[in-house]
Amino acid sequence: MQVHVEVLNFYARQMRLLDALDVEGYAGTFTEDGVTDHAHRGERVEGRAALIAGAKLALPRYAGAAVRHWNDHYLIEEVDENTLAVSYCSLVTRTDADGNVTFEPTFAIEDVLVRLDGELYTRSRTIHRDRPAAAA
Amino acid sequence: MQVHVEVLNFYARQMRLLDALDVEGYAGTFTEDGVTDHAHRGERVEGRAALIAGAKLALPRYAGAAVRHWNDHYLIEEVDENTLAVSYCSLVTRTDADGNVTFEPTFAIEDVLVRLDGELYTRSRTIHRDRPAAAA
Amino acid sequence: MQVHVEVLNFYARQMRLLDALDVEGYAGTFTEDGVTDHAHRGERVEGRAALIAGAKLALPRYAGAAVRHWNDHYLIEEVDENTLAVSYCSLVTRTDADGNVTFEPTFAIEDVLVRLDGELYTRSRTIHRDRPAAAA
Repeated sequence: MQVHVEVLNFYARQMRLLDALDVEGYAGTFTEDGVTDHAHRGERVEGRAALIAGAKLALPRYAGAAVRHWNDHYLIEEVDENTLAVSYCSLVTRTDADGNVTFEPTFAIEDVLVRLDGELYTRSRTIHRDRPAAAA
Repeated sequence: MQVHVEVLNFYARQMRLLDALDVEGYAGTFTEDGVTDHAHRGERVEGRAALIAGAKLALPRYAGAAVRHWNDHYLIEEVDENTLAVSYCSLVTRTDADGNVTFEPTFAIEDVLVRLDGELYTRSRTIHRDRPAAAA
Repeated sequence: MQVHVEVLNFYARQMRLLDALDVEGYAGTFTEDGVTDHAHRGERVEGRAALIAGAKLALPRYAGAAVRHWNDHYLIEEVDENTLAVSYCSLVTRTDADGNVTFEPTFAIEDVLVRLDGELYTRSRTIHRDRPAAAA
Protein backbone atom coordinates (compact mmCIF):
# COMPACT_ATOMS: atom_id res chain seq x y z
CA MET A 1 0.00 0.00 0.00
CA GLN A 2 2.66 2.41 1.10
CA VAL A 3 4.66 1.33 -1.95
CA HIS A 4 1.69 1.96 -4.24
CA VAL A 5 1.42 5.58 -3.13
CA GLU A 6 5.20 6.02 -3.20
CA VAL A 7 5.23 4.82 -6.83
CA LEU A 8 2.34 7.06 -7.87
CA ASN A 9 4.09 10.05 -6.32
CA PHE A 10 7.26 9.17 -8.18
CA TYR A 11 5.47 9.13 -11.54
CA ALA A 12 3.49 12.28 -10.77
CA ARG A 13 6.81 14.07 -10.27
CA GLN A 14 8.69 12.43 -13.11
CA MET A 15 5.92 12.99 -15.67
CA ARG A 16 5.69 16.68 -14.74
CA LEU A 17 9.39 17.10 -15.40
CA LEU A 18 9.10 15.21 -18.69
CA ASP A 19 6.05 17.20 -19.81
CA ALA A 20 7.69 20.48 -18.81
CA LEU A 21 10.55 19.49 -21.17
CA ASP A 22 12.87 19.84 -18.16
CA VAL A 23 15.47 17.54 -19.65
CA GLU A 24 17.97 17.75 -16.79
CA GLY A 25 15.27 17.39 -14.16
CA TYR A 26 13.84 14.37 -15.93
CA ALA A 27 17.27 12.77 -16.33
CA GLY A 28 17.80 13.32 -12.60
CA THR A 29 14.94 10.89 -11.87
CA PHE A 30 17.02 8.13 -13.48
CA THR A 31 20.01 6.45 -11.90
CA GLU A 32 23.39 7.61 -13.23
CA ASP A 33 23.52 4.50 -15.44
CA GLY A 34 19.78 4.54 -16.20
CA VAL A 35 18.69 3.05 -19.50
CA THR A 36 15.81 3.98 -21.80
CA ASP A 37 14.97 1.42 -24.42
CA HIS A 38 12.59 2.43 -27.18
CA ALA A 39 11.97 -1.19 -28.04
CA HIS A 40 9.69 -0.33 -30.96
CA ARG A 41 12.44 1.51 -32.80
CA GLY A 42 15.44 -0.42 -31.53
CA GLU A 43 16.91 2.61 -29.81
CA ARG A 44 18.70 2.28 -26.51
CA VAL A 45 20.07 5.20 -24.49
CA GLU A 46 22.41 4.51 -21.57
CA GLY A 47 23.28 6.90 -18.75
CA ARG A 48 22.07 10.34 -17.78
CA ALA A 49 24.43 12.23 -20.09
CA ALA A 50 23.22 10.34 -23.17
CA LEU A 51 19.61 10.72 -22.01
CA ILE A 52 20.03 14.48 -21.75
CA ALA A 53 21.79 14.74 -25.12
CA GLY A 54 19.13 12.63 -26.86
CA ALA A 55 16.24 14.49 -25.25
CA LYS A 56 17.71 17.84 -26.28
CA LEU A 57 17.90 16.65 -29.86
CA ALA A 58 14.23 15.65 -29.66
CA LEU A 59 13.07 18.98 -28.19
CA PRO A 60 12.28 20.67 -31.54
CA ARG A 61 9.73 17.90 -32.09
CA TYR A 62 7.78 19.35 -29.17
CA ALA A 63 7.91 22.99 -30.21
CA GLY A 64 4.43 24.36 -30.59
CA ALA A 65 2.75 21.83 -28.32
CA ALA A 66 2.28 21.24 -24.61
CA VAL A 67 2.83 17.52 -24.05
CA ARG A 68 1.12 15.42 -21.37
CA HIS A 69 1.52 11.77 -20.49
CA TRP A 70 -1.58 10.10 -19.03
CA ASN A 71 -0.71 6.81 -17.34
CA ASP A 72 -2.97 4.03 -16.18
CA HIS A 73 -3.06 0.46 -14.90
CA TYR A 74 0.14 0.45 -12.86
CA LEU A 75 1.22 -3.02 -11.76
CA ILE A 76 3.97 -3.07 -9.17
CA GLU A 77 6.10 -6.09 -8.37
CA GLU A 78 8.54 -5.89 -5.46
CA VAL A 79 11.61 -7.64 -6.84
CA ASP A 80 13.55 -7.07 -3.64
CA GLU A 81 13.47 -4.60 -0.76
CA ASN A 82 14.66 -1.70 -2.93
CA THR A 83 13.83 -2.80 -6.47
CA LEU A 84 10.41 -2.53 -8.09
CA ALA A 85 9.28 -3.74 -11.51
CA VAL A 86 6.49 -1.40 -12.59
CA SER A 87 4.43 -1.66 -15.77
CA TYR A 88 1.73 0.70 -17.04
CA CYS A 89 0.28 2.14 -20.22
CA SER A 90 0.53 5.71 -21.43
CA LEU A 91 -1.58 8.00 -23.57
CA VAL A 92 0.28 11.07 -24.84
CA THR A 93 -1.43 14.33 -25.78
CA ARG A 94 -0.11 17.41 -27.54
CA THR A 95 -2.04 20.62 -26.97
CA ASP A 96 -1.23 23.42 -29.38
CA ALA A 97 -1.43 27.19 -28.82
CA ASP A 98 -5.08 27.24 -29.94
CA GLY A 99 -5.98 24.47 -27.49
CA ASN A 100 -6.34 21.74 -30.12
CA VAL A 101 -5.40 18.30 -28.78
CA THR A 102 -3.74 15.62 -30.89
CA PHE A 103 -2.38 12.24 -29.88
CA GLU A 104 0.81 10.27 -30.08
CA PRO A 105 0.42 6.51 -30.42
CA THR A 106 -0.38 4.72 -27.15
CA PHE A 107 2.38 2.85 -25.34
CA ALA A 108 3.03 0.08 -22.82
CA ILE A 109 5.98 0.75 -20.52
CA GLU A 110 8.06 -1.51 -18.29
CA ASP A 111 10.25 0.21 -15.71
CA VAL A 112 12.66 -1.00 -13.10
CA LEU A 113 12.78 1.42 -10.18
CA VAL A 114 15.38 1.35 -7.43
CA ARG A 115 15.22 3.02 -4.03
CA LEU A 116 18.45 4.85 -3.13
CA ASP A 117 18.67 6.67 0.21
CA GLY A 118 14.90 6.39 0.49
CA GLU A 119 14.12 7.86 -2.92
CA LEU A 120 12.98 6.12 -6.10
CA TYR A 121 14.89 6.35 -9.41
CA THR A 122 14.33 4.72 -12.78
CA ARG A 123 17.10 2.25 -13.53
CA SER A 124 15.58 1.10 -16.80
CA ARG A 125 12.61 1.98 -18.97
CA THR A 126 11.44 -0.14 -21.87
CA ILE A 127 8.84 1.46 -24.12
CA HIS A 128 6.63 -0.59 -26.45
CA ARG A 129 4.47 1.22 -28.97
CA ASP A 130 0.99 -0.30 -29.16
CA ARG A 131 0.39 -2.13 -32.40
CA PRO A 132 -2.68 -4.03 -33.60
CA ALA A 133 -2.55 -7.71 -32.78
CA ALA A 134 -1.85 -9.98 -35.72
CA ALA A 135 -5.11 -11.43 -37.03
CA ALA A 136 -5.80 -14.51 -34.88
CA MET B 1 -6.87 1.66 1.81
CA GLN B 2 -5.80 -1.92 1.34
CA VAL B 3 -9.03 -2.48 -0.56
CA HIS B 4 -8.38 0.54 -2.79
CA VAL B 5 -5.02 -0.86 -3.93
CA GLU B 6 -6.47 -4.38 -4.27
CA VAL B 7 -9.18 -3.01 -6.56
CA LEU B 8 -6.74 -0.98 -8.68
CA ASN B 9 -4.56 -4.07 -9.10
CA PHE B 10 -7.59 -6.08 -10.15
CA TYR B 11 -8.49 -3.59 -12.89
CA ALA B 12 -4.88 -3.20 -14.02
CA ARG B 13 -4.81 -6.96 -14.64
CA GLN B 14 -8.31 -7.28 -16.07
CA MET B 15 -7.92 -4.35 -18.48
CA ARG B 16 -4.63 -5.78 -19.81
CA LEU B 17 -6.34 -9.06 -20.61
CA LEU B 18 -9.25 -7.23 -22.24
CA ASP B 19 -6.97 -4.96 -24.28
CA ALA B 20 -4.78 -7.90 -25.32
CA LEU B 21 -7.99 -9.47 -26.73
CA ASP B 22 -7.28 -12.45 -24.45
CA VAL B 23 -10.90 -13.52 -24.38
CA GLU B 24 -10.45 -16.57 -22.16
CA GLY B 25 -8.17 -14.73 -19.76
CA TYR B 26 -10.62 -11.86 -19.52
CA ALA B 27 -13.57 -14.23 -18.95
CA GLY B 28 -11.53 -15.86 -16.19
CA THR B 29 -11.65 -12.61 -14.21
CA PHE B 30 -15.44 -13.00 -13.99
CA THR B 31 -17.23 -15.47 -11.74
CA GLU B 32 -18.57 -18.56 -13.52
CA ASP B 33 -22.04 -16.95 -13.58
CA GLY B 34 -20.70 -13.44 -14.20
CA VAL B 35 -22.96 -11.04 -16.08
CA THR B 36 -22.12 -8.23 -18.49
CA ASP B 37 -24.95 -5.84 -19.18
CA HIS B 38 -24.51 -3.37 -22.03
CA ALA B 39 -27.34 -1.26 -20.66
CA HIS B 40 -27.14 1.21 -23.56
CA ARG B 41 -27.97 -1.45 -26.12
CA GLY B 42 -30.11 -3.75 -24.00
CA GLU B 43 -27.66 -6.62 -24.31
CA ARG B 44 -27.05 -8.95 -21.41
CA VAL B 45 -24.51 -11.78 -21.42
CA GLU B 46 -24.61 -14.38 -18.63
CA GLY B 47 -21.84 -16.76 -17.67
CA ARG B 48 -18.25 -17.21 -18.79
CA ALA B 49 -19.11 -19.42 -21.78
CA ALA B 50 -21.50 -16.86 -23.24
CA LEU B 51 -19.00 -14.07 -22.49
CA ILE B 52 -16.29 -15.90 -24.42
CA ALA B 53 -18.59 -16.69 -27.34
CA GLY B 54 -19.80 -13.08 -27.56
CA ALA B 55 -16.33 -11.63 -27.28
CA LYS B 56 -15.03 -13.90 -30.04
CA LEU B 57 -17.80 -12.71 -32.31
CA ALA B 58 -16.77 -9.12 -31.56
CA LEU B 59 -13.06 -9.69 -32.23
CA PRO B 60 -13.13 -8.74 -35.94
CA ARG B 61 -14.28 -5.30 -34.81
CA TYR B 62 -10.87 -4.86 -33.23
CA ALA B 63 -8.77 -6.06 -36.14
CA GLY B 64 -6.37 -3.37 -37.22
CA ALA B 65 -6.32 -1.52 -33.91
CA ALA B 66 -4.68 -1.84 -30.50
CA VAL B 67 -7.39 -1.10 -27.95
CA ARG B 68 -6.81 0.50 -24.54
CA HIS B 69 -9.24 1.27 -21.73
CA TRP B 70 -8.32 4.28 -19.58
CA ASN B 71 -10.29 4.28 -16.33
CA ASP B 72 -10.74 7.03 -13.79
CA HIS B 73 -12.68 8.09 -10.71
CA TYR B 74 -13.11 4.72 -9.03
CA LEU B 75 -15.61 4.75 -6.19
CA ILE B 76 -15.59 1.64 -4.03
CA GLU B 77 -18.38 0.67 -1.66
CA GLU B 78 -17.87 -2.33 0.59
CA VAL B 79 -21.25 -4.07 0.45
CA ASP B 80 -20.10 -6.85 2.75
CA GLU B 81 -16.81 -8.44 3.72
CA ASN B 82 -16.28 -10.00 0.30
CA THR B 83 -18.50 -7.94 -1.99
CA LEU B 84 -17.57 -4.58 -3.48
CA ALA B 85 -19.67 -2.23 -5.60
CA VAL B 86 -17.23 -0.31 -7.81
CA SER B 87 -18.09 2.43 -10.27
CA TYR B 88 -15.77 4.30 -12.64
CA CYS B 89 -15.64 5.88 -16.07
CA SER B 90 -13.73 4.65 -19.08
CA LEU B 91 -12.16 6.24 -22.14
CA VAL B 92 -11.38 3.76 -24.93
CA THR B 93 -8.67 4.34 -27.54
CA ARG B 94 -7.90 2.45 -30.74
CA THR B 95 -4.37 2.84 -32.09
CA ASP B 96 -3.88 1.71 -35.67
CA ALA B 97 -0.74 0.35 -37.33
CA ASP B 98 0.38 3.87 -38.27
CA GLY B 99 0.00 5.07 -34.67
CA ASN B 100 -3.18 7.08 -35.28
CA VAL B 101 -5.46 7.18 -32.24
CA THR B 102 -9.25 7.23 -32.49
CA PHE B 103 -11.84 7.02 -29.74
CA GLU B 104 -14.85 4.95 -28.80
CA PRO B 105 -17.61 6.79 -26.94
CA THR B 106 -16.92 7.32 -23.24
CA PHE B 107 -18.64 5.08 -20.69
CA ALA B 108 -19.71 4.88 -17.06
CA ILE B 109 -19.40 1.40 -15.55
CA GLU B 110 -20.89 -0.20 -12.44
CA ASP B 111 -19.31 -3.46 -11.31
CA VAL B 112 -19.99 -5.84 -8.48
CA LEU B 113 -16.79 -7.61 -7.46
CA VAL B 114 -16.63 -10.61 -5.16
CA ARG B 115 -13.62 -11.98 -3.30
CA LEU B 116 -13.30 -15.77 -3.61
CA ASP B 117 -10.37 -17.52 -1.88
CA GLY B 118 -8.72 -14.13 -1.47
CA GLU B 119 -9.02 -13.07 -5.11
CA LEU B 120 -11.38 -10.59 -6.75
CA TYR B 121 -13.72 -11.51 -9.62
CA THR B 122 -16.37 -9.53 -11.48
CA ARG B 123 -19.82 -10.88 -10.70
CA SER B 124 -21.63 -8.27 -12.73
CA ARG B 125 -20.71 -5.37 -15.01
CA THR B 126 -23.21 -2.78 -16.19
CA ILE B 127 -21.98 -0.47 -18.95
CA HIS B 128 -23.66 2.86 -19.70
CA ARG B 129 -22.61 4.78 -22.78
CA ASP B 130 -22.25 8.50 -22.05
CA ARG B 131 -24.95 10.56 -23.69
CA PRO B 132 -25.56 14.30 -23.60
CA ALA B 133 -27.94 15.34 -20.85
CA ALA B 134 -31.38 16.38 -21.98
CA ALA B 135 -31.64 20.15 -22.23
CA ALA B 136 -32.46 21.38 -18.69
CA MET C 1 -1.65 6.72 2.41
CA GLN C 2 -5.02 7.19 4.03
CA VAL C 3 -4.93 10.78 2.81
CA HIS C 4 -4.14 9.66 -0.74
CA VAL C 5 -7.26 7.49 -0.91
CA GLU C 6 -9.36 10.16 0.81
CA VAL C 7 -8.28 12.67 -1.84
CA LEU C 8 -8.96 10.30 -4.75
CA ASN C 9 -12.43 9.61 -3.35
CA PHE C 10 -13.08 13.32 -3.07
CA TYR C 11 -12.21 13.92 -6.73
CA ALA C 12 -14.12 10.85 -7.92
CA ARG C 13 -17.23 12.35 -6.29
CA GLN C 14 -16.60 15.95 -7.27
CA MET C 15 -15.83 15.15 -10.92
CA ARG C 16 -19.03 13.09 -11.23
CA LEU C 17 -21.07 16.04 -10.03
CA LEU C 18 -19.23 18.37 -12.38
CA ASP C 19 -19.62 16.04 -15.36
CA ALA C 20 -23.30 15.45 -14.57
CA LEU C 21 -23.70 19.25 -14.83
CA ASP C 22 -25.08 19.13 -11.27
CA VAL C 23 -24.19 22.75 -10.59
CA GLU C 24 -25.53 22.91 -7.04
CA GLY C 25 -24.02 19.54 -6.12
CA TYR C 26 -20.66 20.62 -7.51
CA ALA C 27 -20.77 23.96 -5.70
CA GLY C 28 -21.53 22.04 -2.50
CA THR C 29 -18.08 20.43 -2.71
CA PHE C 30 -16.54 23.90 -2.28
CA THR C 31 -16.40 25.82 0.98
CA GLU C 32 -18.97 28.63 1.27
CA ASP C 33 -16.25 31.14 0.32
CA GLY C 34 -14.59 28.80 -2.19
CA VAL C 35 -12.74 30.42 -5.07
CA THR C 36 -12.25 29.25 -8.66
CA ASP C 37 -9.57 31.06 -10.56
CA HIS C 38 -9.37 30.49 -14.31
CA ALA C 39 -5.85 31.87 -14.37
CA HIS C 40 -5.57 31.53 -18.15
CA ARG C 41 -8.43 33.92 -18.77
CA GLY C 42 -8.09 36.13 -15.71
CA GLU C 43 -11.48 35.09 -14.36
CA ARG C 44 -12.01 34.66 -10.65
CA VAL C 45 -15.26 33.46 -9.06
CA GLU C 46 -15.72 33.80 -5.28
CA GLY C 47 -18.24 31.95 -3.16
CA ARG C 48 -20.78 29.22 -3.87
CA ALA C 49 -23.52 31.57 -5.08
CA ALA C 50 -21.27 33.13 -7.71
CA LEU C 51 -19.97 29.69 -8.68
CA ILE C 52 -23.54 28.45 -9.25
CA ALA C 53 -24.53 31.54 -11.21
CA GLY C 54 -21.44 31.35 -13.41
CA ALA C 55 -21.80 27.63 -14.02
CA LYS C 56 -25.44 28.04 -15.02
CA LEU C 57 -24.45 30.66 -17.56
CA ALA C 58 -21.89 28.21 -18.97
CA LEU C 59 -24.34 25.29 -19.23
CA PRO C 60 -25.46 25.95 -22.81
CA ARG C 61 -21.84 25.41 -23.83
CA TYR C 62 -22.28 21.80 -22.77
CA ALA C 63 -25.58 21.13 -24.51
CA GLY C 64 -25.20 18.28 -26.94
CA ALA C 65 -22.21 16.69 -25.25
CA ALA C 66 -21.48 14.47 -22.26
CA VAL C 67 -18.42 15.94 -20.56
CA ARG C 68 -15.80 13.94 -18.66
CA HIS C 69 -12.73 15.09 -16.78
CA TRP C 70 -9.84 12.58 -16.71
CA ASN C 71 -7.31 13.50 -14.02
CA ASP C 72 -3.81 12.21 -13.47
CA HIS C 73 -0.60 12.73 -11.52
CA TYR C 74 -2.04 13.95 -8.23
CA LEU C 75 0.55 15.42 -5.89
CA ILE C 76 -0.67 16.01 -2.35
CA GLU C 77 1.06 18.23 0.17
CA GLU C 78 -0.23 18.30 3.73
CA VAL C 79 -0.06 22.00 4.61
CA ASP C 80 -1.48 21.41 8.07
CA GLU C 81 -3.66 18.80 9.75
CA ASN C 82 -6.75 19.82 7.81
CA THR C 83 -5.37 21.63 4.76
CA LEU C 84 -4.07 19.94 1.64
CA ALA C 85 -2.45 21.48 -1.44
CA VAL C 86 -3.26 19.18 -4.35
CA SER C 87 -2.09 19.55 -7.93
CA TYR C 88 -2.97 17.39 -10.94
CA CYS C 89 -3.58 17.60 -14.67
CA SER C 90 -6.86 17.13 -16.47
CA LEU C 91 -7.94 15.95 -19.91
CA VAL C 92 -11.52 16.90 -20.81
CA THR C 93 -13.64 14.95 -23.30
CA ARG C 94 -16.98 15.79 -24.88
CA THR C 95 -18.97 12.85 -26.23
CA ASP C 96 -21.83 13.77 -28.54
CA ALA C 97 -25.09 11.92 -29.15
CA ASP C 98 -23.48 9.86 -31.93
CA GLY C 99 -20.62 8.82 -29.65
CA ASN C 100 -18.01 11.06 -31.27
CA VAL C 101 -15.37 12.26 -28.80
CA THR C 102 -13.72 15.68 -29.02
CA PHE C 103 -11.34 17.36 -26.61
CA GLU C 104 -11.01 20.55 -24.64
CA PRO C 105 -7.47 21.85 -24.15
CA THR C 106 -5.55 20.07 -21.39
CA PHE C 107 -5.13 21.77 -18.02
CA ALA C 108 -2.98 21.86 -14.91
CA ILE C 109 -4.91 22.48 -11.70
CA GLU C 110 -3.85 23.58 -8.22
CA ASP C 111 -6.40 23.11 -5.45
CA VAL C 112 -6.42 23.86 -1.77
CA LEU C 113 -8.66 21.39 0.07
CA VAL C 114 -9.79 21.77 3.66
CA ARG C 115 -11.22 19.11 5.95
CA LEU C 116 -14.32 20.31 7.83
CA ASP C 117 -16.06 17.91 10.23
CA GLY C 118 -14.11 15.07 8.64
CA GLU C 119 -15.03 15.89 5.05
CA LEU C 120 -12.96 17.49 2.30
CA TYR C 121 -14.02 20.67 0.47
CA THR C 122 -12.29 22.77 -2.16
CA ARG C 123 -11.34 26.16 -0.74
CA SER C 124 -9.61 27.31 -3.89
CA ARG C 125 -9.03 26.02 -7.41
CA THR C 126 -6.58 27.60 -9.83
CA ILE C 127 -6.83 26.37 -13.42
CA HIS C 128 -3.98 26.82 -15.92
CA ARG C 129 -4.59 25.97 -19.54
CA ASP C 130 -1.67 24.08 -21.06
CA ARG C 131 0.26 26.14 -23.57
CA PRO C 132 3.34 25.27 -25.60
CA ALA C 133 6.57 26.27 -23.91
CA ALA C 134 8.32 29.26 -25.39
CA ALA C 135 11.09 28.14 -27.74
CA ALA C 136 14.16 27.54 -25.56
